Amino acid sequence: MSETILDISKYMNSVGQQARTASRALARASTATKNSALIAIATDLDNNREQLITENRKDLAAGAAKGLDAALLDRLELTPARIDSMIEGLQQIAALPDPIGEITNLKYRPTGIQVGNMRVPLGVIGIIYESRPNVTADAAALCLKSGNACVLRGGSEAFHSNQAIAASVRCGLEQAGLPADAVQVIATTDRAAVGALITMPDYIDVIIPRGGKSLIERISSEARVPVIKHLDGICHIYIDDDADIEKALQVTFNSKTQRYGTCNTLETLLVAEEIAESVLPELGGMLHEKGVEIRGCATTCSILPKAVAATEEDWDTEYLAPILAVRIVKDLDEAIDHINRHSSQHTESIITENYSKARCFLREVDSSSVMVNASTRFADGFEYGLGAEIGISTDKFHARGPVGLEGLTSVKYIVLGDGHIRK
Amino acid sequence: MSETILDISKYMNSVGQQARTASRALARASTATKNSALIAIATDLDNNREQLITENRKDLAAGAAKGLDAALLDRLELTPARIDSMIEGLQQIAALPDPIGEITNLKYRPTGIQVGNMRVPLGVIGIIYESRPNVTADAAALCLKSGNACVLRGGSEAFHSNQAIAASVRCGLEQAGLPADAVQVIATTDRAAVGALITMPDYIDVIIPRGGKSLIERISSEARVPVIKHLDGICHIYIDDDADIEKALQVTFNSKTQRYGTCNTLETLLVAEEIAESVLPELGGMLHEKGVEIRGCATTCSILPKAVAATEEDWDTEYLAPILAVRIVKDLDEAIDHINRHSSQHTESIITENYSKARCFLREVDSSSVMVNASTRFADGFEYGLGAEIGISTDKFHARGPVGLEGLTSVKYIVLGDGHIRK
Repeated sequence: MSETILDISKYMNSVGQQARTASRALARASTATKNSALIAIATDLDNNREQLITENRKDLAAGAAKGLDAALLDRLELTPARIDSMIEGLQQIAALPDPIGEITNLKYRPTGIQVGNMRVPLGVIGIIYESRPNVTADAAALCLKSGNACVLRGGSEAFHSNQAIAASVRCGLEQAGLPADAVQVIATTDRAAVGALITMPDYIDVIIPRGGKSLIERISSEARVPVIKHLDGICHIYIDDDADIEKALQVTFNSKTQRYGTCNTLETLLVAEEIAESVLPELGGMLHEKGVEIRGCATTCSILPKAVAATEEDWDTEYLAPILAVRIVKDLDEAIDHINRHSSQHTESIITENYSKARCFLREVDSSSVMVNASTRFADGFEYGLGAEIGISTDKFHARGPVGLEGLTSVKYIVLGDGHIRK
Repeated sequence: MSETILDISKYMNSVGQQARTASRALARASTATKNSALIAIATDLDNNREQLITENRKDLAAGAAKGLDAALLDRLELTPARIDSMIEGLQQIAALPDPIGEITNLKYRPTGIQVGNMRVPLGVIGIIYESRPNVTADAAALCLKSGNACVLRGGSEAFHSNQAIAASVRCGLEQAGLPADAVQVIATTDRAAVGALITMPDYIDVIIPRGGKSLIERISSEARVPVIKHLDGICHIYIDDDADIEKALQVTFNSKTQRYGTCNTLETLLVAEEIAESVLPELGGMLHEKGVEIRGCATTCSILPKAVAATEEDWDTEYLAPILAVRIVKDLDEAIDHINRHSSQHTESIITENYSKARCFLREVDSSSVMVNASTRFADGFEYGLGAEIGISTDKFHARGPVGLEGLTSVKYIVLGDGHIRK
């Protein structure tokens, strides 16, 4: 276990080869075998709590010495409660249905053959993430359950914690009779390892970067393999003139204030001009009381004297903070135009009692989650019933919205015949 | 209509912008509008048969002057029958169900919200193809029906034919009240246009190259947007020792000889050693009579005196010709190992009456189509009931196997609530 490896490209090449080999065994592994590996990993983590905390303290001490801020040190820490929740996460993923091998749409064709789809793993998944060490166990579990091998690259500040978790993962895999190389945590903090990981299409089938926007942008632009990514969460609510005022107040307040730092938090509120005077004063009061700053268009500012004038930049900003941009629009069309221009295609919600406008919003807004009369905060793999989530994709290709086990799979066609030939 | 455009990058940028704008209108277009555009295009092609043939003759003359071979000139030619089939193709695509807007899996969650998926277009599709001008109408129709704008780049040798078809497409779109820029056929033969097309992620959502392997490899390696591609079709049949001999003979003969030049044609036959002596002599005779050369492993050559000795290279070759590589293997495991090592992940079929071995083959072979007792020649969008096919993907990401309308779409999540907030 060393932070320095001399020949990174040789090391990463062997990591990749081992992952590809392990992926074949994993694709064939039965549901029972995969589940027993997940439970064995959970048990091993439980048996090694002290070791985990000792290794985590090394990272915390190094982080403090390097001058990491309190928030980062907090994310880095493995408390007993966080170890509990890592263990629970593994058990929950073991309890989920196995997506692999599921056969759908198996139908007879006029020729007599039956054609259907079978769900299969993608192969090898590379995941690049930042400081939280619990992601190591989470990501390993999701890849394992979906029959994929994975190569994990955590933040350098969590190096010792990640290696300790990796040791439990290897141990659990071996106990279940699966190759330990099915989950490899890169054993170096050298940044060149990331560069190698994202440019090995022969060994890595998809990269999932989790972290800040700059990390994700850099990886997307340099990767030579497909990337499942999520850049921004500039989420909108449109309060239609046919909205139920009480629903508008509750849903907007919840979307903005339930948590400020999440990607599905409301950032821009659009209000139909006909209803603005009826809804904004009370909503403004609720938000003001909660300490949320409002940055409004000219009309908003005339209704809400405490609002600050918004600039053009506000419509394109993900605050991740107690700030809300508010704009009055003429009607649904203008709201959809604004959303299609400024949204990051994450999550948008309309508040309306009007059937036709709800139907139009659902069809025409081009975002990964489109809602009616519901809080944007619901955009989440657990809330959607996926059972788990590796991230939220704002792309359209392959996976969109919250990505659970199914997002880590593909399908192949299967054809059943009885000596059928093509005429 | 000119073959030379001075500033390619400026031209392509404006093509891209127009496509992006048109894609918004197309995503919103109703099923009836899209179908009426398809029918209007078909009618316009029918009304302009003479013009199409005149323009096509310019390409044929230029091709003959350039010394194109007979096969290429044949592919280039627009005969009245080929114009008929272009027109029929458009009518068939109009008759297919509209994939866009379909809602699936809409379920209540414990919180009371309903969560489901709605099918949406990808946006703008770039298609790069070679000599056949009928691809222009086909590709335009598939993109239009699936709600996508498209930018088409046909072979330079079909320039005049493609521009003539493009004129009918524009005319049909306008008649239906859709933006003519929803389908743009690049009006230059300059190769720099391809380079620009595959590196505009702001305007192009996916590239589909159709053509020879070298074209596809070049595009995949240079593209900065996702590519749906199909490189090789090295398809296998494994005749298991529990095969029904008659089915083995018929399916193998059909897979190899029904057409030689297609990607789903059989290229390598694997035979279980226990059954080799019972099946190979008769099969060898049938193939020999048909003029198919057999390149066999040592055991094959000892059973079939007319077989030529295969080299290692034969196991990795897509012949697209009356040649078949034949290898004797010990059992199913050795067959799957051979396939996973040498296959291009296109189509593989097992011939067996054994339930467990059929089940194992279906699960463990990692190809886009995996078959039991059926000819590899069935791997085709029409045979699978997709109604149409834009190509066959040997990738795993996003689309796999024959790609029809659905492969040109994505899904978004929709959430229906009644003032629901997240606790």
